[in-house]
Amino acid sequence: MSIAFLKGHGTQNDFVIVPDPDNAIELSPSAVAVLCDRRAGLGGDGLLHVVRSAAHPEAAHVAGEAEWFMDYRNGDGSVAEMCGNGVRVFAHYLQQAGHVEAGDLAVATRGGVKRVHIAKNGDITVSMGKAALPEEQATVTVGEHSWPARNVNMGNPHAIAFVEDLDQAGNLFTAPETTPATVYPDGVNVEFVVDRGERHVAMRVHERGVGETRSCGTGACAVAVATARRDGLDPAVTGTPVTYTIDLPGGRLVITERVDGEIEMTGSAVIVAEGEISSEWFETLGA
Amino acid sequence: MSIAFLKGHGTQNDFVIVPDPDNAIELSPSAVAVLCDRRAGLGGDGLLHVVRSAAHPEAAHVAGEAEWFMDYRNGDGSVAEMCGNGVRVFAHYLQQAGHVEAGDLAVATRGGVKRVHIAKNGDITVSMGKAALPEEQATVTVGEHSWPARNVNMGNPHAIAFVEDLDQAGNLFTAPETTPATVYPDGVNVEFVVDRGERHVAMRVHERGVGETRSCGTGACAVAVATARRDGLDPAVTGTPVTYTIDLPGGRLVITERVDGEIEMTGSAVIVAEGEISSEWFETLGA
Repeated sequence: MSIAFLKGHGTQNDFVIVPDPDNAIELSPSAVAVLCDRRAGLGGDGLLHVVRSAAHPEAAHVAGEAEWFMDYRNGDGSVAEMCGNGVRVFAHYLQQAGHVEAGDLAVATRGGVKRVHIAKNGDITVSMGKAALPEEQATVTVGEHSWPARNVNMGNPHAIAFVEDLDQAGNLFTAPETTPATVYPDGVNVEFVVDRGERHVAMRVHERGVGETRSCGTGACAVAVATARRDGLDPAVTGTPVTYTIDLPGGRLVITERVDGEIEMTGSAVIVAEGEISSEWFETLGA
Repeated sequence: MSIAFLKGHGTQNDFVIVPDPDNAIELSPSAVAVLCDRRAGLGGDGLLHVVRSAAHPEAAHVAGEAEWFMDYRNGDGSVAEMCGNGVRVFAHYLQQAGHVEAGDLAVATRGGVKRVHIAKNGDITVSMGKAALPEEQATVTVGEHSWPARNVNMGNPHAIAFVEDLDQAGNLFTAPETTPATVYPDGVNVEFVVDRGERHVAMRVHERGVGETRSCGTGACAVAVATARRDGLDPAVTGTPVTYTIDLPGGRLVITERVDGEIEMTGSAVIVAEGEISSEWFETLGA
Protein backbone atom coordinates (compact mmCIF):
# COMPACT_ATOMS: atom_id res chain seq x y z
CA MET A 1 0.00 0.00 0.00
CA SER A 2 1.34 3.37 -0.99
CA ILE A 3 0.60 6.29 1.34
CA ALA A 4 0.17 9.78 -0.06
CA PHE A 5 1.28 12.76 2.00
CA LEU A 6 1.70 16.50 1.81
CA LYS A 7 3.87 18.83 3.86
CA GLY A 8 2.62 22.26 4.80
CA HIS A 9 2.65 24.96 7.44
CA GLY A 10 0.63 27.79 8.96
CA THR A 11 2.90 30.62 10.16
CA GLN A 12 5.63 27.96 10.24
CA ASN A 13 3.78 25.63 12.56
CA ASP A 14 4.32 22.65 10.27
CA PHE A 15 2.48 19.44 9.56
CA VAL A 16 2.59 16.17 7.71
CA ILE A 17 -0.79 15.82 5.99
CA VAL A 18 -2.09 12.31 5.30
CA PRO A 19 -5.24 12.31 3.14
CA ASP A 20 -7.29 9.23 3.98
CA PRO A 21 -11.01 9.93 3.25
CA ASP A 22 -12.11 6.37 4.05
CA ASN A 23 -10.02 6.04 7.23
CA ALA A 24 -8.21 3.08 5.71
CA ILE A 25 -4.70 3.85 6.98
CA GLU A 26 -3.68 2.57 10.39
CA LEU A 27 -1.52 5.32 11.90
CA SER A 28 -0.12 3.96 15.15
CA PRO A 29 1.35 6.42 17.67
CA SER A 30 4.84 5.08 16.96
CA ALA A 31 4.41 5.44 13.19
CA VAL A 32 3.17 9.03 13.64
CA ALA A 33 6.14 9.80 15.88
CA VAL A 34 8.60 8.58 13.25
CA LEU A 35 6.78 10.35 10.40
CA CYS A 36 7.01 13.58 12.42
CA ASP A 37 10.64 12.96 13.41
CA ARG A 38 12.62 15.68 11.68
CA ARG A 39 15.62 13.48 10.82
CA ALA A 40 14.40 9.90 10.73
CA GLY A 41 11.12 10.76 9.00
CA LEU A 42 9.40 13.59 7.15
CA GLY A 43 9.29 16.03 10.04
CA GLY A 44 6.47 18.07 11.49
CA ASP A 45 5.12 19.63 14.66
CA GLY A 46 2.14 17.34 14.14
CA LEU A 47 0.21 15.22 11.67
CA LEU A 48 -3.13 16.04 10.07
CA HIS A 49 -4.98 12.83 9.25
CA VAL A 50 -7.71 13.91 6.82
CA VAL A 51 -10.74 11.64 7.15
CA ARG A 52 -14.42 11.93 6.25
CA SER A 53 -16.33 12.31 9.52
CA ALA A 54 -18.69 9.52 8.50
CA ALA A 55 -15.73 7.13 8.29
CA HIS A 56 -14.31 7.86 11.75
CA PRO A 57 -15.86 6.59 15.01
CA GLU A 58 -14.91 9.79 16.85
CA ALA A 59 -16.66 12.06 14.32
CA ALA A 60 -19.47 10.06 12.71
CA HIS A 61 -22.03 11.71 15.02
CA VAL A 62 -21.29 15.14 13.51
CA ALA A 63 -20.96 13.95 9.91
CA GLY A 64 -24.18 15.75 8.93
CA GLU A 65 -22.77 19.04 10.19
CA ALA A 66 -19.08 18.72 9.25
CA GLU A 67 -18.11 16.46 6.34
CA TRP A 68 -14.39 16.32 7.25
CA PHE A 69 -12.69 15.31 10.49
CA MET A 70 -9.26 16.64 11.47
CA ASP A 71 -7.79 13.60 13.23
CA TYR A 72 -4.93 15.62 14.73
CA ARG A 73 -1.85 13.94 16.16
CA ASN A 74 0.95 15.57 18.09
CA GLY A 75 4.52 15.05 16.89
CA ASP A 76 5.07 12.49 19.67
CA GLY A 77 2.22 10.37 18.33
CA SER A 78 -0.39 11.26 20.95
CA VAL A 79 -3.82 12.58 19.92
CA ALA A 80 -4.85 16.20 20.46
CA GLU A 81 -8.15 17.98 20.44
CA MET A 82 -7.41 20.95 18.23
CA CYS A 83 -4.67 23.04 16.66
CA GLY A 84 -5.49 26.52 15.36
CA ASN A 85 -2.64 26.69 12.87
CA GLY A 86 -3.31 23.09 11.87
CA VAL A 87 -6.96 23.70 11.03
CA ARG A 88 -5.93 26.45 8.56
CA VAL A 89 -3.57 24.03 6.81
CA PHE A 90 -6.31 21.38 6.94
CA ALA A 91 -8.84 23.72 5.26
CA HIS A 92 -6.27 24.87 2.70
CA TYR A 93 -5.58 21.26 1.77
CA LEU A 94 -9.31 20.49 1.39
CA GLN A 95 -9.69 23.44 -0.96
CA GLN A 96 -6.56 22.64 -2.98
CA ALA A 97 -7.68 19.01 -3.34
CA GLY A 98 -11.05 20.18 -4.64
CA HIS A 99 -13.01 18.78 -1.71
CA VAL A 100 -14.37 22.20 -0.66
CA GLU A 101 -14.65 25.68 -2.16
CA ALA A 102 -13.80 29.09 -0.75
CA GLY A 103 -16.33 30.36 1.77
CA ASP A 104 -17.67 28.89 5.01
CA LEU A 105 -16.69 25.44 6.14
CA ALA A 106 -17.33 23.34 9.24
CA VAL A 107 -14.46 21.09 10.36
CA ALA A 108 -14.95 18.32 12.90
CA THR A 109 -12.20 18.12 15.55
CA ARG A 110 -11.87 16.37 18.89
CA GLY A 111 -12.46 19.84 20.36
CA GLY A 112 -15.85 20.11 18.64
CA VAL A 113 -16.99 21.39 15.25
CA LYS A 114 -14.95 24.44 14.22
CA ARG A 115 -16.27 27.21 11.98
CA VAL A 116 -13.76 28.08 9.28
CA HIS A 117 -13.86 30.65 6.49
CA ILE A 118 -11.66 30.47 3.40
CA ALA A 119 -11.32 33.93 1.85
CA LYS A 120 -10.92 34.44 -1.89
CA ASN A 121 -7.28 35.55 -1.30
CA GLY A 122 -6.57 32.23 0.40
CA ASP A 123 -6.46 33.56 3.98
CA ILE A 124 -8.27 31.33 6.40
CA THR A 125 -10.22 32.35 9.49
CA VAL A 126 -11.01 29.95 12.30
CA SER A 127 -13.04 30.48 15.46
CA MET A 128 -10.84 29.81 18.46
CA GLY A 129 -13.40 30.03 21.28
CA LYS A 130 -13.54 32.54 24.10
CA ALA A 131 -10.86 33.75 26.47
CA ALA A 132 -11.08 33.53 30.24
CA LEU A 133 -9.19 36.10 32.34
CA PRO A 134 -8.36 34.53 35.71
CA GLU A 135 -7.75 37.05 38.47
CA GLU A 136 -4.59 35.46 39.83
CA GLN A 137 -1.57 37.25 38.42
CA ALA A 138 2.00 35.98 38.19
CA THR A 139 5.41 37.51 37.58
CA VAL A 140 7.52 36.33 34.64
CA THR A 141 11.29 36.39 35.11
CA VAL A 142 14.09 35.89 32.58
CA GLY A 143 17.59 36.55 33.89
CA GLU A 144 17.64 40.00 35.48
CA HIS A 145 14.31 41.09 33.98
CA SER A 146 10.90 40.63 35.59
CA TRP A 147 7.48 41.64 34.33
CA PRO A 148 3.94 41.43 35.71
CA ALA A 149 2.16 38.81 33.59
CA ARG A 150 -1.39 39.06 32.32
CA ASN A 151 -3.23 35.79 32.78
CA VAL A 152 -5.34 34.63 29.82
CA ASN A 153 -6.81 31.15 29.39
CA MET A 154 -7.74 29.96 25.89
CA GLY A 155 -8.47 26.41 27.03
CA ASN A 156 -4.77 26.38 27.86
CA PRO A 157 -2.99 28.82 30.18
CA HIS A 158 -0.97 31.84 29.04
CA ALA A 159 1.22 34.36 30.88
CA ILE A 160 1.74 37.52 28.83
CA ALA A 161 4.58 39.95 29.50
CA PHE A 162 4.80 43.34 27.79
CA VAL A 163 8.50 43.97 27.26
CA GLU A 164 10.59 46.79 25.82
CA ASP A 165 12.51 44.56 23.43
CA LEU A 166 11.87 40.93 22.42
CA ASP A 167 15.57 40.21 23.01
CA GLN A 168 14.92 40.66 26.73
CA ALA A 169 13.33 37.18 26.65
CA GLY A 170 16.82 35.77 26.08
CA ASN A 171 17.48 32.54 24.22
CA LEU A 172 14.43 30.76 25.77
CA PHE A 173 16.36 27.47 25.86
CA THR A 174 14.55 26.84 29.14
CA ALA A 175 11.11 27.88 30.38
CA PRO A 176 10.82 31.40 31.83
CA GLU A 177 10.18 31.43 35.55
CA THR A 178 6.64 32.29 36.67
CA THR A 179 5.96 33.05 40.32
CA PRO A 180 4.12 32.24 42.47
CA ALA A 181 3.92 28.65 41.21
CA THR A 182 0.30 28.40 42.43
CA VAL A 183 -0.98 30.59 39.57
CA TYR A 184 -0.10 28.01 36.91
CA PRO A 185 -0.05 24.62 38.64
CA ASP A 186 0.03 22.77 35.28
CA GLY A 187 2.69 24.94 33.68
CA VAL A 188 2.07 27.82 31.29
CA ASN A 189 2.75 29.14 27.82
CA VAL A 190 4.66 32.42 28.13
CA GLU A 191 4.34 35.23 25.57
CA PHE A 192 6.62 38.26 25.31
CA VAL A 193 5.04 41.22 23.52
CA VAL A 194 6.26 44.56 22.12
CA ASP A 195 4.26 47.30 20.39
CA ARG A 196 4.75 47.76 16.68
CA GLY A 197 2.01 50.33 15.95
CA GLU A 198 -1.66 50.97 16.49
CA ARG A 199 -3.32 47.63 17.33
CA HIS A 200 -0.20 45.93 16.07
CA VAL A 201 2.26 43.99 18.23
CA ALA A 202 5.04 41.45 17.80
CA MET A 203 5.56 38.46 20.07
CA ARG A 204 7.73 35.50 20.96
CA VAL A 205 6.37 32.45 22.71
CA HIS A 206 7.72 29.66 24.90
CA GLU A 207 5.26 26.77 24.62
CA ARG A 208 4.76 24.63 27.69
CA GLY A 209 6.65 21.35 27.30
CA VAL A 210 7.97 22.27 23.84
CA GLY A 211 10.24 25.32 23.96
CA GLU A 212 10.29 28.44 21.83
CA THR A 213 8.21 27.98 18.68
CA ARG A 214 7.71 30.10 15.58
CA SER A 215 3.97 30.33 16.07
CA CYS A 216 1.30 29.52 18.64
CA GLY A 217 -2.33 30.10 17.64
CA THR A 218 -3.82 30.21 21.13
CA GLY A 219 -0.86 32.36 22.22
CA ALA A 220 -1.61 34.94 19.53
CA CYS A 221 -5.27 35.01 20.63
CA ALA A 222 -4.29 35.40 24.28
CA VAL A 223 -1.89 38.21 23.35
CA ALA A 224 -4.63 40.04 21.40
CA VAL A 225 -7.01 39.89 24.37
CA ALA A 226 -4.34 40.92 26.89
CA THR A 227 -3.24 43.82 24.69
CA ALA A 228 -6.84 44.98 24.17
CA ARG A 229 -7.44 45.07 27.94
CA ARG A 230 -4.15 46.90 28.46
CA ASP A 231 -5.35 49.42 25.87
CA GLY A 232 -8.70 49.77 27.65
CA LEU A 233 -10.64 47.89 24.97
CA ASP A 234 -13.26 45.24 25.75
CA PRO A 235 -15.78 44.40 23.00
CA ALA A 236 -18.28 43.13 25.58
CA VAL A 237 -18.29 46.60 27.14
CA THR A 238 -17.95 48.85 24.10
CA GLY A 239 -20.13 46.78 21.77
CA THR A 240 -17.46 47.00 19.05
CA PRO A 241 -15.18 44.16 17.91
CA VAL A 242 -11.44 44.78 18.23
CA THR A 243 -8.78 43.52 15.84
CA TYR A 244 -5.04 43.20 16.45
CA THR A 245 -2.27 42.30 14.03
CA ILE A 246 0.22 39.94 15.68
CA ASP A 247 3.67 39.37 14.18
CA LEU A 248 5.18 36.04 15.19
CA PRO A 249 8.60 34.68 14.23
CA GLY A 250 6.84 32.44 11.66
CA GLY A 251 4.55 35.04 10.14
CA ARG A 252 1.54 37.26 10.75
CA LEU A 253 -1.82 36.49 12.32
CA VAL A 254 -4.82 38.81 12.61
CA ILE A 255 -6.98 38.30 15.68
CA THR A 256 -10.49 39.67 16.13
CA GLU A 257 -12.38 39.55 19.41
CA ARG A 258 -16.09 39.77 18.72
CA VAL A 259 -18.74 41.41 20.88
CA ASP A 260 -19.90 37.97 22.07
CA GLY A 261 -16.33 37.18 23.15
CA GLU A 262 -15.63 34.68 20.37
CA ILE A 263 -12.09 35.04 19.04
CA GLU A 264 -11.35 34.63 15.34
CA MET A 265 -7.85 34.00 14.03
CA THR A 266 -6.95 34.76 10.40
CA GLY A 267 -3.77 33.76 8.63
CA SER A 268 -2.33 32.02 5.62
CA ALA A 269 -1.54 28.37 5.01
CA VAL A 270 1.08 26.93 2.71
CA ILE A 271 1.47 23.55 1.00
CA VAL A 272 5.18 23.01 0.34
CA ALA A 273 5.23 19.61 -1.35
CA GLU A 274 3.34 16.42 -1.92
CA GLY A 275 4.28 12.87 -2.67
CA GLU A 276 4.27 9.32 -1.46
CA ILE A 277 5.79 7.77 1.62
CA SER A 278 8.07 4.87 0.81
CA SER A 279 6.02 1.77 1.59
CA GLU A 280 9.22 -0.23 2.04
CA TRP A 281 10.29 2.20 4.75
CA PHE A 282 6.85 2.66 6.29
CA GLU A 283 6.52 -1.10 6.80
CA THR A 284 9.69 -1.05 8.91
CA LEU A 285 7.94 1.29 11.36
CA GLY A 286 5.67 -1.50 12.60
CA ALA A 287 2.66 0.69 11.87
CA MET B 1 8.28 23.75 -13.86
CA SER B 2 7.66 20.99 -11.37
CA ILE B 3 10.59 19.91 -9.19
CA ALA B 4 10.89 16.32 -8.03
CA PHE B 5 12.44 15.58 -4.64
CA LEU B 6 13.11 12.75 -2.24
CA LYS B 7 13.78 12.80 1.48
CA GLY B 8 16.24 10.39 3.01
CA HIS B 9 18.84 9.90 5.69
CA GLY B 10 22.05 8.09 6.58
CA THR B 11 22.21 7.28 10.31
CA GLN B 12 19.69 10.14 10.70
CA ASN B 13 21.86 12.72 9.01
CA ASP B 14 19.03 13.80 6.70
CA PHE B 15 18.84 15.29 3.24
CA VAL B 16 16.53 16.71 0.63
CA ILE B 17 17.47 15.00 -2.65
CA VAL B 18 16.83 16.90 -5.89
CA PRO B 19 17.39 14.72 -8.99
CA ASP B 20 18.43 16.97 -11.86
CA PRO B 21 20.57 14.95 -14.36
CA ASP B 22 20.82 17.81 -16.87
CA ASN B 23 21.56 20.51 -14.28
CA ALA B 24 18.46 22.39 -15.39
CA ILE B 25 17.27 23.55 -11.96
CA GLU B 26 18.61 26.81 -10.58
CA LEU B 27 19.03 26.24 -6.83
CA SER B 28 19.98 29.57 -5.29
CA PRO B 29 21.46 29.60 -1.79
CA SER B 30 18.30 31.20 -0.43
CA ALA B 31 16.07 28.58 -2.09
CA VAL B 32 18.23 25.79 -0.67
CA ALA B 33 18.06 27.35 2.79
CA VAL B 34 14.25 27.45 2.68
CA LEU B 35 13.99 23.91 1.26
CA CYS B 36 16.17 22.71 4.16
CA ASP B 37 14.28 24.79 6.73
CA ARG B 38 12.54 22.29 8.99
CA ARG B 39 9.35 24.30 9.43
CA ALA B 40 9.05 26.62 6.44
CA GLY B 41 10.28 24.00 3.94
CA LEU B 42 10.92 20.29 3.62
CA GLY B 43 13.69 20.11 6.18
CA GLY B 44 17.15 18.60 6.02
CA ASP B 45 20.69 18.90 7.32
CA GLY B 46 21.65 19.47 3.69
CA LEU B 47 20.58 19.08 0.07
CA LEU B 48 21.91 16.56 -2.44
CA HIS B 49 21.62 17.99 -5.95
CA VAL B 50 22.04 14.96 -8.24
CA VAL B 51 23.61 16.02 -11.54
CA ARG B 52 25.48 14.22 -14.31
CA SER B 53 29.12 15.30 -14.06
CA ALA B 54 29.17 16.15 -17.77
CA ALA B 55 26.38 18.70 -17.19
CA HIS B 56 28.07 20.57 -14.33
CA PRO B 57 30.97 23.00 -14.79
CA GLU B 58 32.56 21.91 -11.49
CA ALA B 59 32.59 18.21 -12.44
CA ALA B 60 32.75 17.99 -16.23
CA HIS B 61 36.52 17.36 -16.09
CA VAL B 62 35.99 14.09 -14.21
CA ALA B 63 32.91 12.97 -16.17
CA GLY B 64 34.85 10.11 -17.77
CA GLU B 65 35.77 8.78 -14.34
CA ALA B 66 32.59 9.50 -12.36
CA GLU B 67 29.27 9.79 -14.17
CA TRP B 68 27.42 11.48 -11.30
CA PHE B 69 28.27 14.65 -9.36
CA MET B 70 27.09 15.19 -5.79
CA ASP B 71 26.46 18.95 -5.79
CA TYR B 72 26.22 19.10 -2.00
CA ARG B 73 24.70 22.09 -0.24
CA ASN B 74 24.66 22.77 3.47
CA GLY B 75 21.34 23.50 5.14
CA ASP B 76 22.16 27.21 5.19
CA GLY B 77 22.48 27.23 1.40
CA SER B 78 26.28 27.33 1.19
CA VAL B 79 28.20 24.76 -0.85
CA ALA B 80 30.30 22.05 0.77
CA GLU B 81 33.00 19.73 -0.49
CA MET B 82 31.83 16.41 0.82
CA CYS B 83 29.52 14.69 3.31
CA GLY B 84 30.17 11.06 4.23
CA ASN B 85 26.61 10.27 5.29
CA GLY B 86 25.31 12.23 2.30
CA VAL B 87 27.29 10.23 -0.23
CA ARG B 88 25.70 7.00 1.06
CA VAL B 89 22.24 8.46 0.56
CA PHE B 90 23.35 9.78 -2.85
CA ALA B 91 24.53 6.30 -3.94
CA HIS B 92 21.40 4.65 -2.54
CA TYR B 93 19.26 7.05 -4.55
CA LEU B 94 21.24 6.34 -7.76
CA GLN B 95 20.69 2.63 -7.27
CA GLN B 96 17.00 2.95 -6.41
CA ALA B 97 16.44 5.16 -9.46
CA GLY B 98 18.09 2.56 -11.66
CA HIS B 99 21.02 4.79 -12.63
CA VAL B 100 23.62 2.42 -11.15
CA GLU B 101 23.79 -1.17 -9.94
CA ALA B 102 25.19 -2.70 -6.78
CA GLY B 103 28.98 -2.90 -6.75
CA ASP B 104 31.67 -0.28 -7.16
CA LEU B 105 30.82 3.29 -8.03
CA ALA B 106 32.78 6.50 -8.42
CA VAL B 107 31.02 9.69 -7.26
CA ALA B 108 32.30 13.14 -8.17
CA THR B 109 32.29 15.62 -5.27
CA ARG B 110 33.88 19.00 -4.66
CA GLY B 111 36.30 17.06 -2.44
CA GLY B 112 37.40 14.88 -5.37
CA VAL B 113 36.17 11.60 -6.84
CA LYS B 114 35.02 9.27 -4.05
CA ARG B 115 35.10 5.48 -4.28
CA VAL B 116 31.83 3.96 -3.15
CA HIS B 117 30.71 0.35 -2.87
CA ILE B 118 27.06 -0.70 -2.73
CA ALA B 119 26.77 -4.15 -1.14
CA LYS B 120 24.03 -6.59 -2.11
CA ASN B 121 22.38 -6.08 1.31
CA GLY B 122 22.13 -2.34 0.59
CA ASP B 123 24.92 -1.22 2.92
CA ILE B 124 27.18 1.36 1.38
CA THR B 125 30.90 1.85 1.91
CA VAL B 126 32.68 5.10 1.14
CA SER B 127 36.36 5.99 1.36
CA MET B 128 36.79 8.87 3.75
CA GLY B 129 40.49 9.64 3.29
CA LYS B 130 43.28 9.33 5.83
CA ALA B 131 43.51 10.54 9.39
CA ALA B 132 46.22 12.85 10.72
CA LEU B 133 47.16 12.64 14.38
CA PRO B 134 48.51 16.04 15.48
CA GLU B 135 50.75 15.91 18.53
CA GLU B 136 49.15 18.80 20.39
CA GLN B 137 46.69 17.46 22.95
CA ALA B 138 43.81 19.29 24.60
CA THR B 139 41.59 18.72 27.59
CA VAL B 140 37.82 18.50 27.16
CA THR B 141 35.67 19.78 30.02
CA VAL B 142 31.93 19.50 30.62
CA GLY B 143 30.71 20.74 33.98
CA GLU B 144 32.77 19.04 36.70
CA HIS B 145 34.25 16.40 34.38
CA SER B 146 37.49 16.74 32.41
CA TRP B 147 39.16 14.27 30.07
CA PRO B 148 42.40 14.24 28.06
CA ALA B 149 41.34 14.52 24.42
CA ARG B 150 42.88 12.57 21.55
CA ASN B 151 43.46 14.82 18.55
CA VAL B 152 42.44 13.38 15.17
CA ASN B 153 42.12 15.36 11.95
CA MET B 154 39.96 13.96 9.14
CA GLY B 155 40.22 17.13 7.06
CA ASN B 156 38.34 18.68 9.96
CA PRO B 157 39.49 18.66 13.60
CA HIS B 158 38.23 16.26 16.27
CA ALA B 159 38.80 16.03 20.03
CA ILE B 160 37.94 12.58 21.37
CA ALA B 161 37.24 11.94 25.04
CA PHE B 162 36.87 8.42 26.44
CA VAL B 163 34.24 8.67 29.16
CA GLU B 164 32.69 6.26 31.65
CA ASP B 165 29.11 7.12 30.69
CA LEU B 166 27.78 9.11 27.72
CA ASP B 167 25.54 11.05 30.12
CA GLN B 168 28.69 12.70 31.50
CA ALA B 169 28.67 14.86 28.35
CA GLY B 170 25.56 16.58 29.73
CA ASN B 171 22.91 18.14 27.50
CA LEU B 172 25.49 19.52 25.01
CA PHE B 173 23.33 22.63 24.47
CA THR B 174 26.62 24.50 24.22
CA ALA B 175 30.05 23.47 22.97
CA PRO B 176 32.24 21.55 25.42
CA GLU B 177 35.28 23.52 26.56
CA THR B 178 38.62 22.51 25.04
CA THR B 179 41.84 23.88 26.54
CA PRO B 180 44.30 25.25 25.71
CA ALA B 181 42.53 27.18 22.94
CA THR B 182 45.69 27.07 20.81
CA VAL B 183 45.19 23.36 19.98
CA TYR B 184 42.02 24.03 17.98
CA PRO B 185 42.21 27.64 16.78
CA ASP B 186 39.28 27.11 14.34
CA GLY B 187 37.06 25.26 16.78
CA VAL B 188 36.63 21.52 17.00
CA ASN B 189 34.15 18.66 16.79
CA VAL B 190 34.06 16.89 20.14
CA GLU B 191 33.29 13.18 20.49
CA PHE B 192 32.48 11.35 23.72
CA VAL B 193 33.14 7.60 23.58
CA VAL B 194 32.31 4.59 25.77
CA ASP B 195 33.23 0.95 25.24
CA ARG B 196 30.46 -1.46 24.30
CA GLY B 197 32.49 -4.59 23.56
CA GLU B 198 35.48 -5.80 21.62
CA ARG B 199 36.19 -3.24 18.86
CA HIS B 200 32.78 -1.80 19.52
CA VAL B 201 32.10 1.63 21.02
CA ALA B 202 29.23 4.09 21.31
CA MET B 203 29.61 7.85 20.89
CA ARG B 204 27.93 11.23 21.07
CA VAL B 205 29.17 14.18 19.07
CA HIS B 206 29.00 17.97 19.33
CA GLU B 207 29.60 19.32 15.81
CA ARG B 208 31.43 22.60 15.52
CA GLY B 209 28.97 25.40 14.76
CA VAL B 210 25.97 23.05 14.75
CA GLY B 211 25.44 21.44 18.16
CA GLU B 212 24.81 17.84 19.10
CA THR B 213 23.86 15.76 16.06
CA ARG B 214 22.65 12.19 15.64
CA SER B 215 25.53 11.25 13.37
CA CYS B 216 28.84 12.62 12.13
CA GLY B 217 30.70 10.57 9.52
CA THR B 218 34.14 12.09 10.01
CA GLY B 219 33.56 11.94 13.76
CA ALA B 220 32.93 8.19 13.61
CA CYS B 221 36.13 7.75 11.56
CA ALA B 222 38.13 9.84 14.02
CA VAL B 223 36.72 7.84 16.94
CA ALA B 224 37.69 4.54 15.25
CA VAL B 225 41.28 5.73 14.77
CA ALA B 226 41.58 7.16 18.28
CA THR B 227 40.18 3.97 19.81
CA ALA B 228 42.50 1.79 17.74
CA ARG B 229 45.54 3.74 18.97
CA ARG B 230 44.27 3.58 22.54
CA ASP B 231 43.97 -0.20 22.06
CA GLY B 232 47.54 -0.37 20.70
CA LEU B 233 46.40 -1.04 17.11
CA ASP B 234 47.90 0.70 14.08
CA PRO B 235 47.42 -0.98 10.66
CA ALA B 236 50.49 0.80 9.27
CA VAL B 237 52.59 -0.94 11.94
CA THR B 238 50.89 -4.32 12.21
CA GLY B 239 50.12 -4.72 8.51
CA THR B 240 46.55 -5.73 9.37
CA PRO B 241 43.41 -3.59 8.82
CA VAL B 242 41.36 -2.84 11.93
CA THR B 243 37.59 -2.52 12.04
CA TYR B 244 35.45 -0.88 14.72
CA THR B 245 31.68 -0.81 15.11
CA ILE B 246 30.50 2.64 16.18
CA ASP B 247 27.02 3.18 17.62
CA LEU B 248 25.77 6.74 17.17
CA PRO B 249 22.44 8.18 18.35
CA GLY B 250 21.19 7.89 14.75
CA GLY B 251 22.39 4.36 14.01
CA ARG B 252 25.43 2.18 13.48
CA LEU B 253 28.52 2.74 11.33
CA VAL B 254 31.35 0.29 10.72
CA ILE B 255 34.77 1.86 10.21
CA THR B 256 37.80 0.09 8.75
CA GLU B 257 41.29 1.57 8.75
CA ARG B 258 43.32 -0.04 5.98
CA VAL B 259 47.03 -0.75 5.99
CA ASP B 260 47.63 2.22 3.69
CA GLY B 261 45.80 4.46 6.17
CA GLU B 262 42.68 4.93 4.05
CA ILE B 263 39.53 4.88 6.16
CA GLU B 264 36.36 3.22 4.89
CA MET B 265 32.97 3.93 6.40
CA THR B 266 30.07 1.48 5.96
CA GLY B 267 26.45 2.11 6.84
CA SER B 268 22.91 2.08 5.59
CA ALA B 269 20.90 4.71 3.76
CA VAL B 270 17.15 5.20 3.78
CA ILE B 271 14.73 6.88 1.38
CA VAL B 272 11.68 7.95 3.37
CA ALA B 273 9.48 9.56 0.72
CA GLU B 274 9.42 11.10 -2.72
CA GLY B 275 7.25 13.62 -4.45
CA GLU B 276 7.08 17.03 -6.03
CA ILE B 277 7.80 20.43 -4.59
CA SER B 278 4.88 22.82 -5.03
CA SER B 279 5.89 25.04 -7.96
CA GLU B 280 3.52 27.75 -6.71
CA TRP B 281 5.40 27.80 -3.41
CA PHE B 282 8.88 27.37 -4.91
CA GLU B 283 8.37 30.41 -7.11
CA THR B 284 7.75 32.52 -4.01
CA LEU B 285 11.27 31.68 -2.84
CA GLY B 286 12.81 33.86 -5.53
CA ALA B 287 14.99 30.96 -6.62
